[in-house]
Amino acid sequence: MREEIKRLIKEELSQIETWLQRLCISQHPFINQVSEYILFSGGKRIRPLLCVLSAKALGEDSKDQLYQTSLLFEYLHVATLLHDDVVDSAEFRRGRKAARNLWGNQATILVGDYLYAKALKIASSLKNPNIMEAITETTFLMSEGEILQLLHLDDTYLSEASYNEIIYRKTAALISCSCKVGAILSGGSSSQVDSLGNYGLNLGMAFQIIDDLLDYLGSETGKDRGKDFREGKITLPVILALDSASETDRERLITLLKKRDSSQEDFQIAFSIIEKNGGFQRSLQKAKDFTMQAKEFLKEIPDSLYKDSLFFIADFILERKK
Amino acid sequence: MREEIKRLIKEELSQIETWLQRLCISQHPFINQVSEYILFSGGKRIRPLLCVLSAKALGEDSKDQLYQTSLLFEYLHVATLLHDDVVDSAEFRRGRKAARNLWGNQATILVGDYLYAKALKIASSLKNPNIMEAITETTFLMSEGEILQLLHLDDTYLSEASYNEIIYRKTAALISCSCKVGAILSGGSSSQVDSLGNYGLNLGMAFQIIDDLLDYLGSETGKDRGKDFREGKITLPVILALDSASETDRERLITLLKKRDSSQEDFQIAFSIIEKNGGFQRSLQKAKDFTMQAKEFLKEIPDSLYKDSLFFIADFILERKK
Repeated sequence: MREEIKRLIKEELSQIETWLQRLCISQHPFINQVSEYILFSGGKRIRPLLCVLSAKALGEDSKDQLYQTSLLFEYLHVATLLHDDVVDSAEFRRGRKAARNLWGNQATILVGDYLYAKALKIASSLKNPNIMEAITETTFLMSEGEILQLLHLDDTYLSEASYNEIIYRKTAALISCSCKVGAILSGGSSSQVDSLGNYGLNLGMAFQIIDDLLDYLGSETGKDRGKDFREGKITLPVILALDSASETDRERLITLLKKRDSSQEDFQIAFSIIEKNGGFQRSLQKAKDFTMQAKEFLKEIPDSLYKDSLFFIADFILERKK
Repeated sequence: MREEIKRLIKEELSQIETWLQRLCISQHPFINQVSEYILFSGGKRIRPLLCVLSAKALGEDSKDQLYQTSLLFEYLHVATLLHDDVVDSAEFRRGRKAARNLWGNQATILVGDYLYAKALKIASSLKNPNIMEAITETTFLMSEGEILQLLHLDDTYLSEASYNEIIYRKTAALISCSCKVGAILSGGSSSQVDSLGNYGLNLGMAFQIIDDLLDYLGSETGKDRGKDFREGKITLPVILALDSASETDRERLITLLKKRDSSQEDFQIAFSIIEKNGGFQRSLQKAKDFTMQAKEFLKEIPDSLYKDSLFFIADFILERKK
């Protein structure tokens, strides 16, 4: 069964990849070059995949349009990555030079805008007001999330509730929208659309928490470990550690986070403080809780190998190493 | 009659201004602060105005929704200004410090994204696929235009046709869309929608040509005269001058445009070369031709004071000094 699910997911991912390569991004070679650089840089295609699986779980089989539509979520995602890189003055992205490092901030901002516009153009070609509303509401939340994140970047008083608000907007909303649009595309009932939307929302929360955990615990590629720490970014492991730390630990951790040009040793000390105060272990538990919630929302969805795949992805999220 | 038109336009502009001030941009004080800074920095509100007048010329009178919808074009416009300022590393905008100079590039990019998302959210709330398609096609063209402009920034071989392609995407498409959406909102026939769209398109072309002319000839505020020249930006007056200049003039003008940190004297010499070769006078003629075309497209629209106002604006564009 597990093998069957893995095979199905692999097959869907390969379809998505084929469509990504087949569809022309632009008539302009330069736009293509920058877009393809970010689009084919090892993305996991989780958003298109969830869109396709959600649609198929509700019986959709009009393949071409489904795959083409699912790509808009990848375009939206990489558009935010391009703007993020400029905002963060990033040097690297997924172990390669960041686009801004090759083509400059100007082109990176504008190609981000282009991919965003392209995604919305694909969405509007469906002529479905419900889909359009879901997507524009999502991009609205996403842009709010990016701004909130910027404002709270080094806010050591950031509460878990505010952190959740930010990652909901920044990450979970788009993952939720991918599932929701898949459900709408296959003509699901409004309660099925909501269920899959809520599945995606909780999955997205877990996804981001794991992402923030991997920044400390290390990913398989290992390239960017400690990036959030060096930027002084306050993420869930830090919030939960600060929450129960002694005054001394609290002050030390905050000092380390606020330090500019922090060393590998600083990172190790911070790591120990967070670990000692249960920051990692409790973050993982929160992520688990979200995936449990996500799976709960699949109850209403009819049984199928597609639904099993959505279950599988919820578990996989917790185990992912990159 | 002329006074009546002026009064009508003034009244509509004041309604638009009231709605702009009344509608809350965001729940977040910071987003409001940056948004309001750019929104209330002396914009001419030409896009909302054209949307309202186009709708009313076809009989629309459901006032509140019309004004609220018209604002989305101002939001889209200022969103591009914010990104432009980052792309151009602008110090000033409309005689005030550029937003990026007060809040940094990061917030400026993200609030630009926010206003863009806000505009599309307003659009999708209308639940009208035709409006949505017009707007997403426009934002797509606009982002293409911005990239083309960046790529051709100092391309002294830029043809008039390529220049037209760029300003069509960068400026005329949105002005056209404002008119078109006004027409759709009031239930105009598809030929009326096209007519008003084409009116806006030609008007937008003239608008941008005049903008590029004012960069040389000076605006009332006079603040930014010569900005395009100093950036080495190739605009219509330059293209037309290069087109008919002697080899010597051509080389001198190109050298001056390519020079970094050019002086006021350089500007004066460039100015003389362009003037001598008819660059300004022929650009003005091109703008006039576009406004003639624009007015031509109003033929099909029933007579009214609103239609007269659209005529008036076409003439006014040519005379504007800022």
